[in-house]
Amino acid sequence: MPPTAIILLSGGLDSATALAVARAEGFRCHCICFDYGQRHRFELQAAQRVAASLHAAEFLIFKLDLRAFGGSALTADIEVPKDRDAHAISSEIPVTYVPARNLVFLSIASGLAEVRNASCIFAGVNAVDYSGYPDCRPEFITSFERTVNLGTKAGVEAMKRDARAIEIRTPLIDLSKSDIIRRGVALGVDYSLTHSCYDPDESGGACGSCDSCTIRAAGFKAAGVSDPTRYR
Amino acid sequence: MPPTAIILLSGGLDSATALAVARAEGFRCHCICFDYGQRHRFELQAAQRVAASLHAAEFLIFKLDLRAFGGSALTADIEVPKDRDAHAISSEIPVTYVPARNLVFLSIASGLAEVRNASCIFAGVNAVDYSGYPDCRPEFITSFERTVNLGTKAGVEAMKRDARAIEIRTPLIDLSKSDIIRRGVALGVDYSLTHSCYDPDESGGACGSCDSCTIRAAGFKAAGVSDPTRYR
Repeated sequence: MPPTAIILLSGGLDSATALAVARAEGFRCHCICFDYGQRHRFELQAAQRVAASLHAAEFLIFKLDLRAFGGSALTADIEVPKDRDAHAISSEIPVTYVPARNLVFLSIASGLAEVRNASCIFAGVNAVDYSGYPDCRPEFITSFERTVNLGTKAGVEAMKRDARAIEIRTPLIDLSKSDIIRRGVALGVDYSLTHSCYDPDESGGACGSCDSCTIRAAGFKAAGVSDPTRYR
Repeated sequence: MPPTAIILLSGGLDSATALAVARAEGFRCHCICFDYGQRHRFELQAAQRVAASLHAAEFLIFKLDLRAFGGSALTADIEVPKDRDAHAISSEIPVTYVPARNLVFLSIASGLAEVRNASCIFAGVNAVDYSGYPDCRPEFITSFERTVNLGTKAGVEAMKRDARAIEIRTPLIDLSKSDIIRRGVALGVDYSLTHSCYDPDESGGACGSCDSCTIRAAGFKAAGVSDPTRYR
């Protein structure tokens, strides 16, 4: 039996690449995607396409309504910022920040990891072009890994053998967006299946000017890879 | 304005006491209760009664379906163990363990804390009569607190002032069940409103023999407090 990993899949470019890395390392991949009340459904559809194209063993949509307590432009009716330059994007925590999102997603993935006997959770977080989210920083990931091993049955049992039960893998954390794209292209990721835009039109066409579109387009350009994004 | 706290409320005896402690310390209390696919609804009804009786500022039911990935007698069709003695209860992780439950609940509470500008999260976890759950241990709670402060906008901003944004308070962690009950009685908690049984009858009557009933009944006896539990 190959080792099992849980993959946090969002439908975006980074998590698709993380899935490809996990597959290339020989993991049987169980993908979890969160239906958390985001503004549009294109992310979920993209995630499902990506999981199928990269031969995931499972694709699970987990529903939880983070709109229940409000507070983010990604889930509430706050305007998504447009046409900001790279400095403005990276210098502050943006309004698109969803409170405790990665903490919540990693926690739920940890529960799934226990039930599926997975030894790893892969997350496509990135601290370079990380758009200012605190829950994408390496020190957060390291601390989370320690916490999950202390707080789960699998972790407690592994500690008796002086081991970690669950490892949080972030293979993209130190890569630039262009490095991520080059890595994914080498691993056969079809980025036309992915969706990054925070503010797409009715058919899923990307706006080209939100922070996510700006970072993505610059990444393809810097990687020297033709941008497969369908813009509105 | 009084300081604000988020209270993890389950409908059980411990979390009701934690709410009473937070109120006594002068916090404005926002209670969050999880509808996670547990076997019965009595917990949620008890939580709502407890929140009202202790004058909570908010009572929020957050839905997420932990049954989606199975694996616990509290959410799936695995038999709840009965008539075990205290040694058997405390010596192993029971089948009623829900994978990563407190990790998930604390994570979601952290998101709510950010949105409500709460400086504290109160959790009624207890490491004495803790029924073998790894996510009730002090080392888990300490590590979680560090993680949440590293991974949230509020935490990052507080760290710039060399402070913690969110404190995880577990006022019952070192108390025996009888100490908890004595504390709660002194603070005016009406334990007849709470529900602890894992396997109640159709009207919510407690079975008297699951681990939770066993620990609760022994607690009232040791505290010298008449047991207000309605048994089937």
